[in-house]
Amino acid sequence: MANEEKTGKKKRKKVSTKPPSGTRDFLPADIARRQHVIGIVRRVYASYGFVPLETPTIENLSTLLGKYGDEGDQLLYRILHRRDNLHRALAKEPLTEADLADQGLRYDLTVPLARVVANTTYQLPKFFKRYQIQPVWRADRPGRGRFREFYQCDVDITGTTSLIAEAEVCSALAQVLVELGFKDFTIRLNHREVLRAMIRAAKIDDKLEASALVAVDKLDKIGREGVKAELAERGILETSAEELLRMVLAGQLQDDSTDSTERSGNDGTDSPGQTKNPEPQAGLELLTKALDGSGQRALAEIQSLLKLLRMTPAGPFVRFSPDLARGLSYYTGAIFEIAIADLHGSLGGGGRYDGLIGMFDAKGKKQVPSVGFSLGLERILVVMEERGMFPAEALNTGPDLLLCWLDIGLADVISVAHRLREQGLRVEIFPEEKTKLGKQLGYADSDGVKAPIAAILGEDELALGEITLKNLTSGEQSRIPLPEAAAKIAAWRSSTTT
Amino acid sequence: MANEEKTGKKKRKKVSTKPPSGTRDFLPADIARRQHVIGIVRRVYASYGFVPLETPTIENLSTLLGKYGDEGDQLLYRILHRRDNLHRALAKEPLTEADLADQGLRYDLTVPLARVVANTTYQLPKFFKRYQIQPVWRADRPGRGRFREFYQCDVDITGTTSLIAEAEVCSALAQVLVELGFKDFTIRLNHREVLRAMIRAAKIDDKLEASALVAVDKLDKIGREGVKAELAERGILETSAEELLRMVLAGQLQDDSTDSTERSGNDGTDSPGQTKNPEPQAGLELLTKALDGSGQRALAEIQSLLKLLRMTPAGPFVRFSPDLARGLSYYTGAIFEIAIADLHGSLGGGGRYDGLIGMFDAKGKKQVPSVGFSLGLERILVVMEERGMFPAEALNTGPDLLLCWLDIGLADVISVAHRLREQGLRVEIFPEEKTKLGKQLGYADSDGVKAPIAAILGEDELALGEITLKNLTSGEQSRIPLPEAAAKIAAWRSSTTT
Repeated sequence: MANEEKTGKKKRKKVSTKPPSGTRDFLPADIARRQHVIGIVRRVYASYGFVPLETPTIENLSTLLGKYGDEGDQLLYRILHRRDNLHRALAKEPLTEADLADQGLRYDLTVPLARVVANTTYQLPKFFKRYQIQPVWRADRPGRGRFREFYQCDVDITGTTSLIAEAEVCSALAQVLVELGFKDFTIRLNHREVLRAMIRAAKIDDKLEASALVAVDKLDKIGREGVKAELAERGILETSAEELLRMVLAGQLQDDSTDSTERSGNDGTDSPGQTKNPEPQAGLELLTKALDGSGQRALAEIQSLLKLLRMTPAGPFVRFSPDLARGLSYYTGAIFEIAIADLHGSLGGGGRYDGLIGMFDAKGKKQVPSVGFSLGLERILVVMEERGMFPAEALNTGPDLLLCWLDIGLADVISVAHRLREQGLRVEIFPEEKTKLGKQLGYADSDGVKAPIAAILGEDELALGEITLKNLTSGEQSRIPLPEAAAKIAAWRSSTTT
Repeated sequence: MANEEKTGKKKRKKVSTKPPSGTRDFLPADIARRQHVIGIVRRVYASYGFVPLETPTIENLSTLLGKYGDEGDQLLYRILHRRDNLHRALAKEPLTEADLADQGLRYDLTVPLARVVANTTYQLPKFFKRYQIQPVWRADRPGRGRFREFYQCDVDITGTTSLIAEAEVCSALAQVLVELGFKDFTIRLNHREVLRAMIRAAKIDDKLEASALVAVDKLDKIGREGVKAELAERGILETSAEELLRMVLAGQLQDDSTDSTERSGNDGTDSPGQTKNPEPQAGLELLTKALDGSGQRALAEIQSLLKLLRMTPAGPFVRFSPDLARGLSYYTGAIFEIAIADLHGSLGGGGRYDGLIGMFDAKGKKQVPSVGFSLGLERILVVMEERGMFPAEALNTGPDLLLCWLDIGLADVISVAHRLREQGLRVEIFPEEKTKLGKQLGYADSDGVKAPIAAILGEDELALGEITLKNLTSGEQSRIPLPEAAAKIAAWRSSTTT
């Protein structure tokens, strides 16, 4: 204690070694799993002709504000002014938040895309098909599986009103999920104009539209009676609420008359183009009769999209869901969301937004119709982890072997390591001199190292140009010429995997 | 104009579509180049047994402050408090910067590594060999090739004082540069204790050490007389300045008596272990005579390290550089920096830091000796771009083909696209109906698309299960059965590359 006292105030201050609340350090095993998922997302998106984009972490607040609703604006991370700007702000009276920051952290990947597409100096193709895999930041209350820094994997097609855009986006994300090993997901599909037409048909005031849709969106979780009660709370007449629910439930009807709250019964083993539901759902037909012309046109679009999707990997998984509302106000057409049996919330969502990019055009004239989808990387990882969906190779980023050595010089150790690496092997060298072999082998098997093989190099091996390999799983040991190391390890590997 | 007036104040506000000053949007072609470099960095580092780590963008200011010197602290991006914390701060009188933020953005990758290694709950291996490739943020004045958001590629070995750590780090980064195609770089090597011993031998006051070293570090740029003048300005006696320069220049002497300011003359074609300089430099011997015991021990360490490096890919490129000082105060042993002929500044640098991680231990007892190196991704990219060092495949992320179509239904187009993708092809579909073939082909060749092949699908092809492929480079055209598309494209490709 006396000793600590002497080191002075400065040194005794405890510095936390934890990352800030809501953020995480990704250790090597975490990165391996993340890279496995990201690798598949990239490969599939590229096969659909999407190209990668990355945007800065920091955006001007003028870009971010007013795009995510009031709640979103409050969750933005803002960057404090520096130097002169800060001094000028501190001199103000009264001082407000707006005086202290004009930049913030990326909140999603859609608004930065809109800014990039609106920037005419970039000369992007007319139909810009881009994917983007980057973190976003939201100063939300952290909780189980909810982070303040988290990754999104977005895919968007800008510049066209063609339904091919909706079909390609849904098809690509379905293929990603199938290649990751998911079999029980549902792509829920609805349309903003269907929602609006139902509100009109139920004689609900325009001003209550958003509020009513928030209640309807909970049908999955709180059931029919729950939604009815919530609609009443939100000031909607009972007759209107009844009518709205009647339409939503009619729209959910399936051709095979399965219960409407059950997930798609498809087991995912069908090939695309051969789905069990050759015709769009009966519910679509029923709902058509209840809606006005604008609603009917939207339903016809849904029907065409379902028909297109039957030709793609999305076919077996897509389902018309008239209760799907989605929060963001910028959607203008089809909207999608991925539901999965044992997960509250969704794996991701998206839709058509024909007005957003135009918000970056000063004259408000340049409209760029667009469709996009955002996959939530963190939720995918949580579910894959819980279900044990990672293949063995995604669980290991460590070295192929640890080079253990005794009674020889450092230069010889390094030289042999280099020759092993030239064979394509990932080689870690035990770094310290005069360490007993047992201790070195123990290190190879320790947490965070887990080398499957130890290579042992002593005076004898060195003199003869040989190396001793020890398989740390089977215990098998073999002394061979140095140039044969990679082949021997490959042989061991193939014998354990077969 | 009258029309604009009507749209109201809100809509007319001009929103910039540029990224904030000092940051960049990475368009698909940029990402392709970045991924090319990052892919090689990852592969080489992994082959040395390094494993990946990623840390949060946001760190507590208590982690960041006091590690980068006063200048660094001023360049930190700080996150403005929110809600209650902000309101509490705004009520303070007087209000200072420290009241407004307790978090900031990652400034480098070394301090976060130190925090992670000091966190005992992670149970990392004793010798943690990690690489980390992430952006960092510095609120510096932006300029040509200087950004506020930029990537670093760090590699570090913690937990050992063994010279194998220095050797592995230098070897790995040399191999990265060689595999990227660099042939004319120099790994400049010095030692903190050599610098200190020279200061002592020149009878310069301890307090002027840092200042004197800043001047010496400029020898490359301003020459001997320039350094002498600067040392005088910094209050160092002429005799001391003369003595210091004499030692530095003696230390630079090469065995082959080449001029000391010339870069390593090696053309990089030697194999490791067969360098042109079989013995350490003559300068090392000369300098040894001038220094005290502590300096001599440091020089002996340099000599051992040079000997080890001759066994590695770093051999032909490393050179003892007694004028190398490096700014960061946390280095305690060997220091390195990569110089390249036509670049002001370096491609990266690093060294041994045995005290930094201990700063995170409350009692200041747990010391974790470590060595690391940070490669600057942005500078590597600038030089590679200027020299045309990117292979053709790194310059293209676009689709293999654009599917053009006429007079058929969307469902058939999507179905054929899916069958082409099943062959492993990257396929973009021209999205809009009723577009003339010439216009579709023009689009395939437009900026940002540049598909090398157009696939043409009309009623005839569809009926016969065929596809017409048009090579947009050679103009060659061929109608073939759909399942043969990938093979045909591969054949075209191999004929153009040979």
